[in-house]
Amino acid sequence: MTKLFMFEKPLGMRDTFPDLYEVKDQTKSRMVAEMSRWGYRLIETPTLEYHETVGDASAILDQQLFKLLDQQGHTLVLRPDMTAPIARIAASKLLKDEAPLRLAYSDSVFRAQQREGGRPAEFEQVGIECIGDPSVSADGEVIALMVETLREAGLKHFKVSVGHIGFVQQLFKGIVGTDERADILRRFLYEKNYVGYRRHVEELSLSSIDKDRLKGFLNLRGADGVLEEAEALLEGSKGMEALNELRELWGILKDHGVEDHIKFDLSLVSHMSYYSGILFEVYGENVGFAIGNGGRYNKLLEKFGKDSGATGFGLRLDYVLEALQVKLERPEQECILYSDERRKEAFEIARELRGEGRSVVLQSLRGVSDVDEYTKLFNSVHYCIGAGGKGGGIR
Amino acid sequence: MTKLFMFEKPLGMRDTFPDLYEVKDQTKSRMVAEMSRWGYRLIETPTLEYHETVGDASAILDQQLFKLLDQQGHTLVLRPDMTAPIARIAASKLLKDEAPLRLAYSDSVFRAQQREGGRPAEFEQVGIECIGDPSVSADGEVIALMVETLREAGLKHFKVSVGHIGFVQQLFKGIVGTDERADILRRFLYEKNYVGYRRHVEELSLSSIDKDRLKGFLNLRGADGVLEEAEALLEGSKGMEALNELRELWGILKDHGVEDHIKFDLSLVSHMSYYSGILFEVYGENVGFAIGNGGRYNKLLEKFGKDSGATGFGLRLDYVLEALQVKLERPEQECILYSDERRKEAFEIARELRGEGRSVVLQSLRGVSDVDEYTKLFNSVHYCIGAGGKGGGIR
Repeated sequence: MTKLFMFEKPLGMRDTFPDLYEVKDQTKSRMVAEMSRWGYRLIETPTLEYHETVGDASAILDQQLFKLLDQQGHTLVLRPDMTAPIARIAASKLLKDEAPLRLAYSDSVFRAQQREGGRPAEFEQVGIECIGDPSVSADGEVIALMVETLREAGLKHFKVSVGHIGFVQQLFKGIVGTDERADILRRFLYEKNYVGYRRHVEELSLSSIDKDRLKGFLNLRGADGVLEEAEALLEGSKGMEALNELRELWGILKDHGVEDHIKFDLSLVSHMSYYSGILFEVYGENVGFAIGNGGRYNKLLEKFGKDSGATGFGLRLDYVLEALQVKLERPEQECILYSDERRKEAFEIARELRGEGRSVVLQSLRGVSDVDEYTKLFNSVHYCIGAGGKGGGIR
Repeated sequence: MTKLFMFEKPLGMRDTFPDLYEVKDQTKSRMVAEMSRWGYRLIETPTLEYHETVGDASAILDQQLFKLLDQQGHTLVLRPDMTAPIARIAASKLLKDEAPLRLAYSDSVFRAQQREGGRPAEFEQVGIECIGDPSVSADGEVIALMVETLREAGLKHFKVSVGHIGFVQQLFKGIVGTDERADILRRFLYEKNYVGYRRHVEELSLSSIDKDRLKGFLNLRGADGVLEEAEALLEGSKGMEALNELRELWGILKDHGVEDHIKFDLSLVSHMSYYSGILFEVYGENVGFAIGNGGRYNKLLEKFGKDSGATGFGLRLDYVLEALQVKLERPEQECILYSDERRKEAFEIARELRGEGRSVVLQSLRGVSDVDEYTKLFNSVHYCIGAGGKGGGIR
């Protein structure tokens, strides 16, 4: 092994040491427990999928996919998201007549990074999918559960921005005329490049009224009041259906008691090309990126031959932890240090303490070179050393 | 997407559906909790590693590695085991003067399969590494903890076969003279091809006494009594050190109270080329393969520039579950079916029941096409339908 590579990890790959692992694991457990209480059942999919099956469907940029060839010459990918694999399973196996289907997941996804020091290339997503229920009540449930899941994780200050891809499409198409021209506008919003958006709008050959409509659209953010303002921007009935869905959603979210965490943002647009209705992103304090997102994705199921509606969310566990700003602390641990002649006694004490649920390291004196340094690692040390009878000291 | 690939998964890749997932997750939690009580702390390593760093060190056959190229042209592998990545971390970061270090893991590893219908190419390993303690007490602890971990998982009938690679090497080299010739014999044992081994021994140009020693060696299986028999096979002191370690190990395992699960098998040999001392495999009922294995691997740390001793075990979670022969059952779940006018009431009931820790599906009537079929999925269904006041029926 060359020295250069001896301890290196590939770009974007990280180790998780025990202090962080424990916090992460506890947080994840609390989140998953809440999902279970809402009747979502956990499922696991393979790390590797066929590119043709899941890589294509996932809507992650091709250059972000980790690809490899199997021995039969097929292209495989490390799953870039969980939604596409779950859609594969739902469409092929689980989705029977007795839909809706409620599934949850907690697993790693993979997105290749181009630069050193960039974002992680492997990260955990915790999320759910509600498949087969086309009604807004499912969208409401998904958002409410996301809020409760974050509360369970311990997060207090966070906001869910909610929009509707149908409203954006209808408004844009009504003003600029073609899907192609609407897509250009949409891309600015996806990149959250509002300066570029305004500049582009100015350059369009439109009436000043239409330009004002396109620019005013950016201000449609806030509680349910913005839905009235949004209606005023529409011409005729196009886009009204989307607004009516959002109105209904607001009522559902209020009944769920989560409206304090919600604000509408009608300019919200997602890179996930498969979203087809209500969509959302969630932001916490201290984190520059969305800590989670989701929405309705009826088109994805269509790719797998089912016309069921589906909606879900995915939270990034690393960003949730960042938002929580937890302080890492070494947990309570005891040590029993023993010499051979009192080994059996040491084992008995350990068994007893472990029986009480305590974490106890049993350590032979022969395996430690610097006893003083070693014992500093523990909250208390029990010595079973020398010929002495029962007892031994506790430091 | 071509129909052919629509629902397919790559060779050896599997989905885990909720019924199995839940059993697996509960079993894993119990196992990991026992490891924690023994003071082992969980760590996580990336799915992808450099081939040069961890792929090479892992001693898994090269053709079993999933390999890919990163954008810089380096060869990456999906980690084929957890021991090599943990050795990387221990050697570079964690192993300070205050060794020993006790680490645990519970994660997927990847080994490419050649044939359809073969073994899984991705499977979970649950295990520990005790790094930096060269004494036999560490080997004893590792085996005792493996026994307790399996007991915690719920397994009753299992046996740990314990051998010593040093004994095999010394005995073989003493009789056949060269490492090369000893390796041929060792390969038969690794493949558990005892017929081939005997045939090969017959063909060697050795005295009949030496041939009998090589064949008698296969019978060295059982409790501590076989250590006496093993000694009789040795010439001079070569191999005695290994036997003395096994004798000491037996005393330690007795003090741990796990000796009922142990039998010596001095012909035990592992494919892991990095094992250097005591090694073992564990077998359960109903499973044709070892459900776990482990041993001392001082040489692996040397690859990473440390001369610390290390020992550990890894259990295959899929085989543990197979040995347990658990029956999969759909867990208790309640459903509240509601119509819009009683939505708020339904949400309140759900909140209350979930507060008691119950799993409650909230389902809008509008999202279900066949109510009779749907409600069959639940242990009880609470109806909040129509204009009626509080109450509603429970089926």
